[in-house]
Amino acid sequence: METYAHEHEYLKAVKERAQLPEGFLCSGARIEFQPAECPSEKPRPMNLSLLLLDKPTDLFAGVFTKNSFPGAPVIIGRERLKEQFSRGVLVNNKVANVCAPGGIEDAEAVLSALGNAVGCNTRELFPASTGVIGWKLPTEAMIRGIPELVKDLKTGTALQFAQGIMTTDRYPKVRSARIGSGRIVGFAKGAGMLEPNMGTMLVFLVTDIAMQRSILQEALEYAAEKTFNRISIDGDQSTSDMALIFSSGRKPEIGVVEFRNALVTVCRDLCYDIVRNGEGTAHVIEVHVEGAISESIACAVGKNIVNSPLVKTAVYGNDPNVGRILAAIGDYMGNNGLPIDRDAVTVSMGNEIIFSHGAFRLDSEKEKRLSSYLASTMTEPDHKGFPKHERNVEIGVDLGCGAAEATILGSDLSYEYVRENADYRT
Amino acid sequence: METYAHEHEYLKAVKERAQLPEGFLCSGARIEFQPAECPSEKPRPMNLSLLLLDKPTDLFAGVFTKNSFPGAPVIIGRERLKEQFSRGVLVNNKVANVCAPGGIEDAEAVLSALGNAVGCNTRELFPASTGVIGWKLPTEAMIRGIPELVKDLKTGTALQFAQGIMTTDRYPKVRSARIGSGRIVGFAKGAGMLEPNMGTMLVFLVTDIAMQRSILQEALEYAAEKTFNRISIDGDQSTSDMALIFSSGRKPEIGVVEFRNALVTVCRDLCYDIVRNGEGTAHVIEVHVEGAISESIACAVGKNIVNSPLVKTAVYGNDPNVGRILAAIGDYMGNNGLPIDRDAVTVSMGNEIIFSHGAFRLDSEKEKRLSSYLASTMTEPDHKGFPKHERNVEIGVDLGCGAAEATILGSDLSYEYVRENADYRT
Repeated sequence: METYAHEHEYLKAVKERAQLPEGFLCSGARIEFQPAECPSEKPRPMNLSLLLLDKPTDLFAGVFTKNSFPGAPVIIGRERLKEQFSRGVLVNNKVANVCAPGGIEDAEAVLSALGNAVGCNTRELFPASTGVIGWKLPTEAMIRGIPELVKDLKTGTALQFAQGIMTTDRYPKVRSARIGSGRIVGFAKGAGMLEPNMGTMLVFLVTDIAMQRSILQEALEYAAEKTFNRISIDGDQSTSDMALIFSSGRKPEIGVVEFRNALVTVCRDLCYDIVRNGEGTAHVIEVHVEGAISESIACAVGKNIVNSPLVKTAVYGNDPNVGRILAAIGDYMGNNGLPIDRDAVTVSMGNEIIFSHGAFRLDSEKEKRLSSYLASTMTEPDHKGFPKHERNVEIGVDLGCGAAEATILGSDLSYEYVRENADYRT
Repeated sequence: METYAHEHEYLKAVKERAQLPEGFLCSGARIEFQPAECPSEKPRPMNLSLLLLDKPTDLFAGVFTKNSFPGAPVIIGRERLKEQFSRGVLVNNKVANVCAPGGIEDAEAVLSALGNAVGCNTRELFPASTGVIGWKLPTEAMIRGIPELVKDLKTGTALQFAQGIMTTDRYPKVRSARIGSGRIVGFAKGAGMLEPNMGTMLVFLVTDIAMQRSILQEALEYAAEKTFNRISIDGDQSTSDMALIFSSGRKPEIGVVEFRNALVTVCRDLCYDIVRNGEGTAHVIEVHVEGAISESIACAVGKNIVNSPLVKTAVYGNDPNVGRILAAIGDYMGNNGLPIDRDAVTVSMGNEIIFSHGAFRLDSEKEKRLSSYLASTMTEPDHKGFPKHERNVEIGVDLGCGAAEATILGSDLSYEYVRENADYRT
């Protein structure tokens, strides 16, 4: 649980975490483009961010959104996983390139120009885009930006890359772990965009550990299931979500379980960062559900709590309106025909039991303590530059009917969330 | 599509609709109570509202929330459905009587006092409560209010009853239909409460048509499935939701289908009122999904659209950010493993096609028309006293893979929603 009094303290920590493993380079460029859909408006800025390996690697893996209307980068990315080699990923913001006419050809055209500039096959490059759904990718403007992007490639810290993939993200999000003789470093673009068509999550992971490709894919799927699939800003799964991992293979292979656990740690740490940086997030809500008959039910109950607008608004208001938590549990269980023994259910917030043995355990003193607890975990949602602390609102649920458990992360619901999402294009 | 320029025009319409069928009386009383949970605070007001038959009837039916933590009134109400006769229902606001120690005994004590006062068995009376979850019912204060309540019972218009069950409801909600030689009248307490632990929905329907009891129950279940189960303010199903219907049996029985259709009409009209009066609602969103392989999928897709915070905030901002609608459809279909032919999907808003043949159909002129359309369907969410109009944001989705359809109603997500739900107890 870190606290940061000044932005430079946070950036110093991020810069250290962002040291690229051996074999990786990165760069960023800022271009201007004219949206084809808004011909009469002034040009807009777009960030291009490049993460590149110095040599082609056959050690890479990816997971993608399950949304039925995936963006062109997701469609292309799934195909790229079948290639023998990869050199890296090019990220743009502002235009998500989803269901726009000719979107796949547009993305391929930009990657082709990049491939020519760095000397690799187009099919060795992944695209990643976030921004307005339905708009066409400004290919000419992007291609004009490529020479600068390639010229600036460098090793060392990738703080610049982490900042380049930001849009309304309030701060860069980087986490890392040392493992074996190497490292895993992860970068996330969180649920906060200047043009938030949705809470697109892009995650890029790099390592120098020479794990086999099939192990990388399995470990990434496992980590995504245990971490990214257990967070929710607003319950919407984007058309553009993706997580990619690349290994330069410069350090010796290690045990599968050891690698997988380290990857889960990095991804879980990124999850806290992503939710804390969610659109308008003032509190990170961490729900631990135990005593469930299955892990999927534990996940679903946790998600029903963190996705309940009534729970989210109460937490935002530092109001210990704990009846809403119980209602969200009962809503899920009852409406899915799942049996529950009300007398066996225990619900807590922080260190306080709020429901047990079939009834609420509340009094005016306890409500005051809970309200203080909520206030202590809050940050101002318009606070920019760095997170002030890493505290969470901890909600515990024991369903009392099994041995399965899961932890789900979510955000509260603030005026700032409404403002960012109601007014973003006006 | 009515419009109302002044409150008195709306109240005149409601007063006419609220004429009680033969055999019914109603009354209301305002009491003060001291919450046991807040002994140091000043007393609070509570409304008691009574809907009574002049003679016991054996023609009554009810449907209740599926939440696993139902309130005492729901637990008692389910038992009351097994009784031979009923005389009516007593409604209170402020305290929902959910999972409070001794909640069932408390509700029974109040009904017992009411039974003595009106001369009927306690088991002939239904309780209905809405308000804070976890608080104890103030039985003594409620019992002291009963003599006034019984003294004021009267026939004629039940506008007073419709107003008495209001809390932060912005206006009374009454709908009626003439059928056979009689009428059906419905009253709703919507998703807007002074202490909105959740969007509790209470609906009370009265008729003089002598439909058999089993027909009443079936028709109410059918109507609830087609109407109340297809609206969503915030996706949370309350611990206290209920709909009750009573018949005085004074008018001849009519055909089952004719009665059922009239009941669906009254319930559907109430649904529009409830959503329009939702907490912070500025737009009513009406999603019609067709071309689905089943009605349940059509419902689920519609609900995923109206429950998407990103769709809701865009509509609130009059921003035709239609990509979010497509994303919500794809989210549901993809994550539930349901096949979809993207080229067969058509999505429209108002009279405009926004997606067809696998791509968005947008240009800057169309976006302006859509924005104007959204603005034309808006009302200020803090507007009190009466709804200014009955317009809806109409979204059409053709999934292109079947013949099933469903219409879902929802609300947008405004600053006012956050304000009402974050600050309600402070």
